[in-house]
Amino acid sequence: MTKAGFTLGELAEALQARLDGDPERVVTGVAPLDVAGPDQISFLTDARYHDAARASRAGAFLAAVDAADLPGPTLRCAAPQQALIDLVRMFHPAPVAPPGVDRTALVARDARVDASASVGALTVIESGAVIGPGVRLHALVYVGAGVEVGEGSTIYPHATLREGVRIGRRVVIHSGAVLGADGFGFAFDGVAHRKIPQVGGVLIEDDVEIGANTTIDRATFGDTIVRRGTKIDNLVQIGHNVEVGEHSLLVAQVGVSGSSRLGRGVVLAGQVGVADHVTLGDGVIAGAQAGIPSSLEAGARVLGTPARPIVQAKRIMVAEMRLPELLQRVRALEQRLERLAEQVGETEGPGRT
Amino acid sequence: MTKAGFTLGELAEALQARLDGDPERVVTGVAPLDVAGPDQISFLTDARYHDAARASRAGAFLAAVDAADLPGPTLRCAAPQQALIDLVRMFHPAPVAPPGVDRTALVARDARVDASASVGALTVIESGAVIGPGVRLHALVYVGAGVEVGEGSTIYPHATLREGVRIGRRVVIHSGAVLGADGFGFAFDGVAHRKIPQVGGVLIEDDVEIGANTTIDRATFGDTIVRRGTKIDNLVQIGHNVEVGEHSLLVAQVGVSGSSRLGRGVVLAGQVGVADHVTLGDGVIAGAQAGIPSSLEAGARVLGTPARPIVQAKRIMVAEMRLPELLQRVRALEQRLERLAEQVGETEGPGRT
Amino acid sequence: MTKAGFTLGELAEALQARLDGDPERVVTGVAPLDVAGPDQISFLTDARYHDAARASRAGAFLAAVDAADLPGPTLRCAAPQQALIDLVRMFHPAPVAPPGVDRTALVARDARVDASASVGALTVIESGAVIGPGVRLHALVYVGAGVEVGEGSTIYPHATLREGVRIGRRVVIHSGAVLGADGFGFAFDGVAHRKIPQVGGVLIEDDVEIGANTTIDRATFGDTIVRRGTKIDNLVQIGHNVEVGEHSLLVAQVGVSGSSRLGRGVVLAGQVGVADHVTLGDGVIAGAQAGIPSSLEAGARVLGTPARPIVQAKRIMVAEMRLPELLQRVRALEQRLERLAEQVGETEGPGRT
Repeated sequence: MTKAGFTLGELAEALQARLDGDPERVVTGVAPLDVAGPDQISFLTDARYHDAARASRAGAFLAAVDAADLPGPTLRCAAPQQALIDLVRMFHPAPVAPPGVDRTALVARDARVDASASVGALTVIESGAVIGPGVRLHALVYVGAGVEVGEGSTIYPHATLREGVRIGRRVVIHSGAVLGADGFGFAFDGVAHRKIPQVGGVLIEDDVEIGANTTIDRATFGDTIVRRGTKIDNLVQIGHNVEVGEHSLLVAQVGVSGSSRLGRGVVLAGQVGVADHVTLGDGVIAGAQAGIPSSLEAGARVLGTPARPIVQAKRIMVAEMRLPELLQRVRALEQRLERLAEQVGETEGPGRT
Repeated sequence: MTKAGFTLGELAEALQARLDGDPERVVTGVAPLDVAGPDQISFLTDARYHDAARASRAGAFLAAVDAADLPGPTLRCAAPQQALIDLVRMFHPAPVAPPGVDRTALVARDARVDASASVGALTVIESGAVIGPGVRLHALVYVGAGVEVGEGSTIYPHATLREGVRIGRRVVIHSGAVLGADGFGFAFDGVAHRKIPQVGGVLIEDDVEIGANTTIDRATFGDTIVRRGTKIDNLVQIGHNVEVGEHSLLVAQVGVSGSSRLGRGVVLAGQVGVADHVTLGDGVIAGAQAGIPSSLEAGARVLGTPARPIVQAKRIMVAEMRLPELLQRVRALEQRLERLAEQVGETEGPGRT
Repeated sequence: MTKAGFTLGELAEALQARLDGDPERVVTGVAPLDVAGPDQISFLTDARYHDAARASRAGAFLAAVDAADLPGPTLRCAAPQQALIDLVRMFHPAPVAPPGVDRTALVARDARVDASASVGALTVIESGAVIGPGVRLHALVYVGAGVEVGEGSTIYPHATLREGVRIGRRVVIHSGAVLGADGFGFAFDGVAHRKIPQVGGVLIEDDVEIGANTTIDRATFGDTIVRRGTKIDNLVQIGHNVEVGEHSLLVAQVGVSGSSRLGRGVVLAGQVGVADHVTLGDGVIAGAQAGIPSSLEAGARVLGTPARPIVQAKRIMVAEMRLPELLQRVRALEQRLERLAEQVGETEGPGRT
């Protein structure tokens, strides 16, 4: 997967970097500071790792414009984190699948697959589905009736897009993800839970990424929506009629219950749970394992179960560690006060216990 | 998917509703109060939404017998939530698959598939499996050797039924669910964890629903059992030898550890964890993210980790918010008492610290 | 799946057990104490169940050398738990698949499948993959380009091995598991989250077991590693660049965030979460639902969120139950002290509030 190599001059030009060092020097790969060898270029995107950089055997470095001297030729970039992305892609170009439908794929006669799309082995595309230009459906994908997949999206093996799901452009859906399963809606009739038909859909906007084995349920009515640019990790649950705002990040094993609305730029760390019918304002950040029972204002930063403002939550966590000692201190206070009261002949007050 | 329409008279008859309004009026769909238009019927199944109903542009309403006046013709029902289910199904009839086995499905010679069953593309049915009348196996389903699927059940794409799993009637199993993987049983021999063979099965009774990517492990011996009418959401883990009682509800990302027994009508909210070898009595209700380390009596309502009676848990959660302040108050008390004791010349007590 | 039966003499010889009873007696199966009948052998591997053993109708027993008398012929073993594993395997031999590639499997021309391997129906093996001797790939497995699967490993239906994943010998991977999906790595460029290419791999060493619907992401660079003998339950998330040490146990729904390193013999109970860039020393044990925000020394036993030493965590959990009462006691103390101070004419101190 790795190209033969680039000269530092070529890299400097491609990354619009200033090169301190020999432009003819060739590097054949990119690797982290601790493992890069003399043929590889490494990177310092966080000043905290400067010591590791100084100790690195890398043949060259990518770093910030103002980074201190490093032990080798250095490409200096205004935005080194972004430049690193481009650098990695130069050595590891995204795989391109040849256009066309594998002979073992099963495409319904009335489905439309763009000529530039690639459809893998044993993938099933049901009636009325529309697969856009440059889409890559890997092997063993299931695309239900009437599904739409927008230009340039990639769907990995064993993903399931149930009927009617709509996927935007440049969306990435990882293996085992299930979009459009029925929402969890039942009404107890006194004897049994009767299923409330889930007749809505799922809408995934452009540039969304959805992790492996994540589940996004279809709405009861209307749509469950994930807005533009949002990234969802593995094993996340998005309930029916949820709306996740733009450019949000949902880390692995997060669960968002039905009908909740997340604003733009929300960040939920791993294993966070959000109750149903809750609204989280723009930019809400919740720490790992937080349990969010009710709505939060824009910009709120919370932690704990139930989720509380992070400063308060951390203060409580510190105080909890002193709780057993506190019980003893209060007992000692009670006893001492009792003795003192007896000594001075307390004149009024509650009965002794 | 939507039929052309029904007159309100037709709907009233089908739903056994009393109609206030013109029986000839036609509605072409059903939608929530805030989005329904003049051609659609909406519904008020919860009196809390009465203001939304009054503001709705819907052309007709489904409501309780005693609901206050609404701005349009109204179908009044004794059980509006149940009537709503029927109403939605009239406009969105459950899809019916034509009977028969897709030519690309792979059915073992000695498997038995009822003539009225529908088997989708690239579905694999192994030796000795028995597929009942009216069953629908979607595409890309895996049905292991000796599996039984009862009448009228539906199995969605990419579900896995490992060998010997038995599924009752009218069961729904969503995509990516895995039934019958080995239970997590190992014995450490001093050097390594040796696998304890998991030679039991999985039994799913009638009218159960199992969510997307949920996993239900086979028993070590005997069966892991989910009893009649229970509904399980997405990404739930049911360990080996667990028994879940009838008409229970397990919300997304719940985990039930091995050999635990849940009674009838148990409700576990999202991300709840239940330890192994625990018994939960009938009707136990656990709030989201609760961690249940030990058995609970029938009817217990719990919250928190470790799970405590809900009133106690909420009282603790409130008190926790005052814990940092409490530490300061106790310190102030100690200091004041110390001074007072010095002032009055305390005669006995613990040494000063 | 069950053989016709064995004499107790045969079993004693195979298990190297001492037999108290008739060596000619035949048993036809193995079952737990409460369900075993006179034709079956049962087992007492934990002395706590001695009463159940005495009440059992089993026709014979497997027990420790020093177990008290049981109501039937008894095979006495030095390591009864290990002997039980062998006993069960005698009655339920592991299924063997005939070598060969199913005619409906799709194997890339340049993939290498050992002649002794078994490849199930509709399994896809991409270019350059290497499938070792005795490997069993069940039906509907996806094996990406360049994947290696070592001798004697078993991969169940609907598992996904993305390109370049390397699997050791005697590894078991359950249905729906996804190995090698992209790690969750993005860099915000001020407008949107840009994807950091994930160009590393996944390395699974020998004798690892990976549960159903578990996800193990590929590394950004280098490898995400699960070391020899480790057992991972269902629905577990292992982030990019994580290393899990040898002979560890990760119970269902555990999540380990990116770049964390777990030592040898670590045990994480159900739903535990581990933050990113954390190191857990050898033998760390974390109780169910613990949240581990930072590194832990070897041998640490922790519980709670944030995880604390188990003794401390349990003391806090007990103290929490007295927290509401404590608030009242402190209020009472304050009032009584106030009165007492007034009575004696307190001469100095903080202003009354």
